[in-house]
Parts: sequence; C-alpha cells; structure tokens
Amino acid sequence: QHFSIAAIPGDGIGPEVMAEGLKTLKKIEELHGGIHFSIDTFDWNCEYYVKHGKMMPDNGLEILRDYDVILLGAIGAPTVPDHISVWELILPIRRAFQQYINLRPIKLLRGLESPLRYKAHKDLDFIVVRENTEGEYSNMGGRLHENTPFELAVQNNVFTRYGTERVINYAYSLAEKRTGRRLTAATKSNGINHSMPFWDEIVKEVSKQHPNIQTDIYHIDALAAYFITRPEELDVVVASNLFGDILTDLGAAIVGGLGLAPSGNINPEKNYPSMFEPIHGSAPDIAGKQIANPIAQIWSISLMMEHLGFSDIADLIVSSIEEVLIDRKVSTPDLGGKNSTREFGEAIHQQMTKK
Amino acid sequence: QHFSIAAIPGDGIGPEVMAEGLKTLKKIEELHGGIHFSIDTFDWNCEYYVKHGKMMPDNGLEILRDYDVILLGAIGAPTVPDHISVWELILPIRRAFQQYINLRPIKLLRGLESPLRYKAHKDLDFIVVRENTEGEYSNMGGRLHENTPFELAVQNNVFTRYGTERVINYAYSLAEKRTGRRLTAATKSNGINHSMPFWDEIVKEVSKQHPNIQTDIYHIDALAAYFITRPEELDVVVASNLFGDILTDLGAAIVGGLGLAPSGNINPEKNYPSMFEPIHGSAPDIAGKQIANPIAQIWSISLMMEHLGFSDIADLIVSSIEEVLIDRKVSTPDLGGKNSTREFGEAIHQQMTKK
Ligand SMILES: CC(C)[C@H](C(=O)O)[C@@H](O)C(=O)O
Ligand SMILES: CC(C)[C@H](C(=O)O)[C@@H](O)C(=O)O
Repeated sequence: QHFSIAAIPGDGIGPEVMAEGLKTLKKIEELHGGIHFSIDTFDWNCEYYVKHGKMMPDNGLEILRDYDVILLGAIGAPTVPDHISVWELILPIRRAFQQYINLRPIKLLRGLESPLRYKAHKDLDFIVVRENTEGEYSNMGGRLHENTPFELAVQNNVFTRYGTERVINYAYSLAEKRTGRRLTAATKSNGINHSMPFWDEIVKEVSKQHPNIQTDIYHIDALAAYFITRPEELDVVVASNLFGDILTDLGAAIVGGLGLAPSGNINPEKNYPSMFEPIHGSAPDIAGKQIANPIAQIWSISLMMEHLGFSDIADLIVSSIEEVLIDRKVSTPDLGGKNSTREFGEAIHQQMTKK
Repeated sequence: QHFSIAAIPGDGIGPEVMAEGLKTLKKIEELHGGIHFSIDTFDWNCEYYVKHGKMMPDNGLEILRDYDVILLGAIGAPTVPDHISVWELILPIRRAFQQYINLRPIKLLRGLESPLRYKAHKDLDFIVVRENTEGEYSNMGGRLHENTPFELAVQNNVFTRYGTERVINYAYSLAEKRTGRRLTAATKSNGINHSMPFWDEIVKEVSKQHPNIQTDIYHIDALAAYFITRPEELDVVVASNLFGDILTDLGAAIVGGLGLAPSGNINPEKNYPSMFEPIHGSAPDIAGKQIANPIAQIWSISLMMEHLGFSDIADLIVSSIEEVLIDRKVSTPDLGGKNSTREFGEAIHQQMTKK
C-alpha cells in the first residue's frame, strides 16, 4: 500500500524530532514490504513567516489536501506571536480538514514512573478525546474602546450541536471498543452558564444510546484534581477544545513528561488528511542542541499507523519505545540520560527490528 | 473591635464544616479580649430554593451589604441544577460586592505530604490570585435554533481593561510583599485570540511598573503541567476567572487535598463585605456523616483575619492546624484518620489555646 505524507518540521526542536520520525517511517517500510510512503517536506514555519509575511502559501491548504496524512513537528518561535503562527497554520489545518477529533493517549509507558507517589506503578492508561474545531477556540470576537480606560475584549465560545454531537459520539464509540466501559465528560456548567449546560445536555442525550458505558460529568476544576488523585480510574475522557488542551498537558505530566505525549488530529471519515504531532511545543530554548526527546514524534507515528489500519505496527512502535525505556541504556537528558535525539531515535528503531 | 458576620452554611457538608468555623470565631474572641464577632446565620441554600423558588430573598444582597464579612460553607445539592444555585447566590455576591480578588493559598502544610513524589518534602507555598467578577464567567450568550440539528450555544468571555488591570495590579502588589519576587500569569493567547492577547498586553504593561519582579506568562496547558513538574518555583500566580478556578483545584490536589484549601473573595477597598469559603463543594455523598474535613473552613477564617488586619491570629490558626496534622492523633477519614468533623475541629481549637 502506498501513502503520501506531507511533513512540516516547523520550528525549534521540530526539525530534530521530525528527522527521527521520518526514520521511523523508513523502518516501517523496511519491516513491512507492503507499505510504501512518499514524503514531501514543507518549510512552513516562523522563518517562512518572517520572509513571506504568512505561515504558508495562499494555496497551502489546497496543497495539503491531496496527501493521505500530515506529520507536524512543532510550531512557534520568539519572532512571531503565538496567536499568529498557530492561527495561520495549525488551526486552519485542523478546521479545513475537519479534524474534529484530537486523540491523546495518556499512558504510563513501561520503564517510566509517574511523578504521582501512589500511582508510580499503577496502570495509568486512558485516552482523552478532545474537540478540535470549535468551542473556546473561535476567532469570533474583538475589542471595543481601544486605548481608553473603558477598553474591553470579547471572545465568543461557539458550541454547535453538530460539532458537539460528533465528538461525543466518537468518544462513546471509542469507549465501546475499550474494556474500561467508562466515559468521563469535562464540563463547567456551574460557572459557564450557556455553552457548558448545552454540552452537558448533549452528553446526557448521547449517553442514553450507550447504557453499558458508565457516564460521569465532572467540572473541569474537579476533574483536573481527579487527574492527580485517582487517574487510574479513568478510561475515555471527552472534553471541549480548551478543556481537552489543559487536561492533556496535565495528563502528559502525570505519566512522566511533555516530551513523550503524542496527538492525533483525526478526520474519522477520512475525507481529508489527518495530522499527527507531538503535544509538546517548539521549545526554542533547547533547539538545535540534539537534546530533545523524540518519543512524542515517534509515538505520533504509532497513532498514524493505527489510523491507517495497521494496529500491529502501531503496537510495535509503542512497545519498542517501552523496551528502550526499560533498558535505560539510551535516553535523552529530560529522562536523566546523556544521549542525543538521534541516538535515542536510533535505539528505538533498532528495537523495532529486533521484535 | 467589633465585626459583624453573615454566616451562610449552605448545603451538604456546608453546615458541618461551618459549625467548626463558628467555633474558631468563638476561640478567637476567647483568646483575644479586644475582638468581638456578632454572627447572623442565613438558611439560603438549595432547600430554600426548593421552598421559595430562589436561592435567597429578593433583598438578599441588601441584607448582606451591611455585614463586615460573609462566611460561606458550601452550596449545591442534587435537587437544584448547579448553574442555578451558583448563579443565584455565589456569583451575585462575588459581583455585587466587587470581590474581584479570589485569593487562594497553595501551601503544603507541615504534617502533610504532597502526592508528588519528588516534592513530598519540598517547600510548596505559593498563592493564586484569581479574577473573580468577569472573564469566562459571564452570563452573556444564549442559544439559537433550539431543538434542530443546527442548534448552537454562544458564550461570551468578557475581559475589561478595568477588571483586568485591577486584578493584575493586586497580584503585583502581593508579589511585592512576598520574598519570591516572581509573578506567573496564566494565558492561552495562542488558541484564544481576542481575550487572551488582551490579557497578556495588560500583564506586560503592568509588569513595567514592577521591574524587580520576574514576570512569566505561561499558557494554561503548560502551566497546569508546571504545577506537577516544578511547583516549588512558583510564588504569585495570576489567572482569569476560569483558569484560576482550574489551577486552584489542581493546586489543592498537589498539596494534599481538596478538603483543605480555603478561598477568600476579597474586595480590597473594603467598600463591601468580603466572603470567605472553602474551595471544596457541598459533597452531598458524605453529608451529615460528620466525616468531612473542617480544615478548609477553618483556614478560610485565617484568611478572613488576615483581611481584617490580624496577621498574628491568621498565623496562629494555620500553625495550630499544622500542629494537629504533625501530631497525627486526630484526623478525619480523608487523611486516613477515624475522627469526626467535630473532633478534628476541637483538636485544632485546643491547639490554638496551647500556643
Ligand atoms: C461553584 C463554582 C461556580 C465555583 C467557581 O468555579 O468559581 C467553585 O468551583 C469555586 O472555585 O469557588
Ligand atoms: C499551539 C496551541 C494552540 C495548541 C492548542 O492549544 O491546541 C497546542 O497547545 C496543542 O495542544 O496542540
């Protein structure tokens, strides 16, 4: 089978971790005769913006549309305000391609310990389904009375029934496939009194079609605390765009680090390319030093293979990462090791061959 | 000195923890001849709502206005939707009395261990200043196309310069009084592109007046992770209404429990009463069993004494709580003990006499 991939290494440590990700693709081709990837790399990043005044060409989305998959490194540099780099690249891709599911596994890999004392050896393995196209990240709003004491900014959160139902339906169908049989929805309907009660209503409606799944609705503040006190009880968590964003960074932290967590921006209908990326940012402070951890990027390729229908390869990638972590001989500074990004990637790819 | 106090025990465990809080007030009078409290108790809660169709009388706010301080237990019961009980009692009080600061200490009390492995014995002691009157908790918004597939809900986040400047100014003036000399502001200006860039601008403007305070602006997702990875570095954290809500529950979790954390809703100008309450909710599942931990309520009285200008008494309360925790002879089930709410309160009050 043949898959076309658009690779956008981006800024900061993006190119370094992407280099390892591309080697993962090579390794997959090597191990699995039937799979072939053709990869085009795009230099759309903050440097590109400084040169051209935009993050990608005007027909950037048209160009990307023809690929099966987009692989992203990380976007963001001190030279360009975040809300520009993000709003002109990542968010348009998520929206134009109806990547309305942002799938983020929170899994304590074998070989790592959780920073949570009593959970160090517990089985932490749940998944956050984050809404990825609307909600709190809407560009509707603006300012009034600029530069006066009466200035104000309004930001509209927009929740549609269409957008909300589809993410909640997806989360339930995922819960139906897993063994935990539990869905936890994040809300804040006690404080945010239009959008979140609407969200809760839809959760309750959809829950009726899944009587065998235990449904709980938690306020985001309590749920954040829950991630610390009883995360082992969670199975599928479904959250709005903003709440999912917060919960998954928190989730990454409780399973040992932001350098590790991957994210799949998924168009379940496969009408458009899906995009896979690390959760971490471009980390300009450590860029170019070959000390970034490439696990998140490599793991994101596991999510990609799952999406393309190759669960066995997806599992191979994760278990190879785990073997290297258990082995402890090679690792990057964030995990207490002394190896480079390249060496860490190499160790994982060697492990993939062994298995 | 004489202070008038309006006590609203509320729902669930509210009355049980309030009973202990009122004993703390008695103990203060006993120890400090010059202080006298006159206390009126109001039965405004969900039961009241079920009877009267409202959470408080129409002139409830007028009644409260004449008190020096409001003490709240906890509000919320299964009989009344949260967004009603909260929007008709807590939020109107916070707004009508310009309690624009919600002050929430995140402090690992002596005698307790953090659930964070490497922080168990670190000095975790920072404070979150939460905006308490506007932002994401606005009742502006509504629905369109109800009960059709095209239904949508819009919620407006409203950030005024007035409201933002005053909370950020307050946070800096607090930072100036502390030794950490560091202020960390929560944002999400990369995803939320009208209100949060506005917030960031004001942080940067105000920061210029405080060149000796190190200012950092973190996206809320990264900051939530930071609470897990390096909380000992934090000193003053300033956040919008929603972000402060999330961060403080998370903060309570990393210092050992939601049953412990207090919250002061403060009108710094003292034009109106300020309100002190536990962060925890009404916990209907454990109500009436005398197993709730009264620390948060008692600690909230420490915040109240600080606000009224009695730092020595404020400190006495916290150190008495710590002595009982170090002693470990008396504690409630949430801390692994077998004692009742009443016995735990009593132990703290005895300790206050000893000191
Ligand atoms: C009850 C709820 C609206 C409230 C809030 O979010 O402000 C509570 O969680 C708190 O933190 O005081
Ligand atoms: C860059 C930013 C807008 C983005 C988000 O909040 O979605 C990032 O934090 C993420 O989680 O993918």
